[in-house]
Amino acid sequence: MAVGLKAPGKLHPVRGIRLSATHGGIKQNSELKDLVLIEAAAGSNVAAVFTRNRFCAAPVTVARRHLAKIPASRYLLINSGNANAGTGELGIDDALGSCAAVADVANVKLEAVLPFSTGVIAAPLPRQKIIDAVPSLYASLAVDNWLPAAEGIMTTDTLPKAFSSQLVIGENTVSITGISKGSGMIRPDMATMLSYVATDALIETDELQSILRRVVASSFNSITVDGDTSTNDACVLIATGASGQRISIENDEFITALAQVFEQLAQAIIRDAEGATKFIEIEVLQAPDAADAREVADCIAHSPLVKTALFASDPNWGRILAAIGRARVDQLDIETVDLYLGDTCLLRQGLPDPAYTEAMGQAAMDGEEIQIRVNLNLGDAGARIWTSDLSYEYVRINAEYRS
Amino acid sequence: MAVGLKAPGKLHPVRGIRLSATHGGIKQNSELKDLVLIEAAAGSNVAAVFTRNRFCAAPVTVARRHLAKIPASRYLLINSGNANAGTGELGIDDALGSCAAVADVANVKLEAVLPFSTGVIAAPLPRQKIIDAVPSLYASLAVDNWLPAAEGIMTTDTLPKAFSSQLVIGENTVSITGISKGSGMIRPDMATMLSYVATDALIETDELQSILRRVVASSFNSITVDGDTSTNDACVLIATGASGQRISIENDEFITALAQVFEQLAQAIIRDAEGATKFIEIEVLQAPDAADAREVADCIAHSPLVKTALFASDPNWGRILAAIGRARVDQLDIETVDLYLGDTCLLRQGLPDPAYTEAMGQAAMDGEEIQIRVNLNLGDAGARIWTSDLSYEYVRINAEYRS
Repeated sequence: MAVGLKAPGKLHPVRGIRLSATHGGIKQNSELKDLVLIEAAAGSNVAAVFTRNRFCAAPVTVARRHLAKIPASRYLLINSGNANAGTGELGIDDALGSCAAVADVANVKLEAVLPFSTGVIAAPLPRQKIIDAVPSLYASLAVDNWLPAAEGIMTTDTLPKAFSSQLVIGENTVSITGISKGSGMIRPDMATMLSYVATDALIETDELQSILRRVVASSFNSITVDGDTSTNDACVLIATGASGQRISIENDEFITALAQVFEQLAQAIIRDAEGATKFIEIEVLQAPDAADAREVADCIAHSPLVKTALFASDPNWGRILAAIGRARVDQLDIETVDLYLGDTCLLRQGLPDPAYTEAMGQAAMDGEEIQIRVNLNLGDAGARIWTSDLSYEYVRINAEYRS
Repeated sequence: MAVGLKAPGKLHPVRGIRLSATHGGIKQNSELKDLVLIEAAAGSNVAAVFTRNRFCAAPVTVARRHLAKIPASRYLLINSGNANAGTGELGIDDALGSCAAVADVANVKLEAVLPFSTGVIAAPLPRQKIIDAVPSLYASLAVDNWLPAAEGIMTTDTLPKAFSSQLVIGENTVSITGISKGSGMIRPDMATMLSYVATDALIETDELQSILRRVVASSFNSITVDGDTSTNDACVLIATGASGQRISIENDEFITALAQVFEQLAQAIIRDAEGATKFIEIEVLQAPDAADAREVADCIAHSPLVKTALFASDPNWGRILAAIGRARVDQLDIETVDLYLGDTCLLRQGLPDPAYTEAMGQAAMDGEEIQIRVNLNLGDAGARIWTSDLSYEYVRINAEYRS
């Protein structure tokens, strides 16, 4: 079902990063990997952002606490198949116990290990299975295991998601490689989105966190399938420094390359979204401010009526207009709104464009990739987000998930 | 498809109200009524609330203007089959022209006539057809035409929606009768919800507007199918005074009866919602304030994952919990949340209730009518709303609407 998403291309190893993945018995199918360990060499800096859902999962709570104590995490332990969410104190214990197994074998402090889980919620984490698998996971760490790691964090993703970039800065070659998983903002009863990106650039922790926030804003925080927010979302950026190249947030070339990897990883989630048959970009231009632009974009992206029209390839602009009209933007005025599907103008200043024909709209809707562009003509702020359509398959996947 | 909705029962005439309905050629099927005229006797008071969508339809703009000039409207002219929305200045002219035809034949001022439209948007209103039909509409006004009127305002509703109540206050018999239409918060590319309720109680205009706001809050503003807001929504309450019984907002018996008619009319829209197989009540208790309670209820009601689980009769409480968790309520704390399906406790203080079994959850989910109850244990405010599930049929209706 994935829209324009292919198997990963060449993935550059990142000096200072080793990975491993295995089947630990959490997923029932023994051919599927469900445990991943990522090692960052000593001296690496780590930045992370987590779900804003108030009911976050146990591993999110533990990872936050560990990062607060030891900002330079050394190991990320990720399991798929079980979200360890809605599990209360037991879930916290299980997350800590799993981390302890890694800390023991790697001889680091407990707080240098961050836990992540994705899968069915409200089931106890099979802690012993994880602990039993840790020694072999640790023993098989290698620099070229990005693809197995991408596979190991999948739940109902149909394809592994991994992108890589390399650039020469000064005399140093700097690599950026990342993986992500997710098919909905929240999986049926699952954690959704996880992403791990590493670079061998040398970036200080505070700077790294600022950079992460900036690139997440234009990537993972700019995608939506259903407006729901997972209990387990997490995104981690590691800078090992092993390339010797120091990078600041002012380095446009690096930030652009990093942002591109993040954007590809985020878009891959939408391309593989539950039941998706279309990949939709929504761009709002000339809004009074960025929050207003985003509000209008979200109203369009979350409208089931717009999403079903997109599924039907129906250039039904009335639904888009109605979605814009309910945005909480004080200055909103239909008489200033221009609306485009791709390059086709549907509305100019709130009225059907005289040159518009249904055939033009149909042509713009027929593609797999559709751009909806709204110009509010009210200011100079904008927003760009990506979403998927609402299909029978979306309903099937989510209605039949547990049956 | 309607869930627990029957054909209307006995509808009491309301003294001072006459109605008529006919086929005027707006809908293609000549067996379907598409024009309704409602007459309020001179001396009646009228209150109205309209859509908050910024891109409201021409008839909404005209009706608002007319009410501002002459609060005591005498005629409501309603057409179905065409929303007269997205039609710019031409739409305003067409609405005014239609009103003028009624004003002429009835010999009242133009501003004493309010126009309402529901149907396909962005198509010019067939103004001449409406004008041609007005004389016979006027000639056939009668007190017992509530049911034909309910039929005349339908679009893709599967059943007419009308409820009635009668009570004796002092020595007077007071009647309340109302009709509504709508199958989604917004129809595919349509106006959605219209409702007209009349009583022969004597209620001053200011008081009537206050009463309308109060009963709308707990009825039409407490239902949601898809979170979208129509361009044409309108609700009108007429008090003819013909019973001679003066009523104030302090009269609990009358307000309760009126609120009940409004609630039935609103629930009828949800019972007949697009693709609905379930009728769902969401109640949030002990919230810090009413807005917080409503925010939590809305997050549940608008979650496609909760709605598909309801369609599947799947007691998947993880989705409900995740939906609550993304509510923008500062004090939200999973450790205080109790969650019930009907009388079955799923979660107590954020953790699975020890007595809960999947079989109990399944039993609670199997019915056509499902109650989700959330106790936040944080304050003493509450909210109660009604919604429908998300089914294949919802996608089919909205994907195939124009094909």
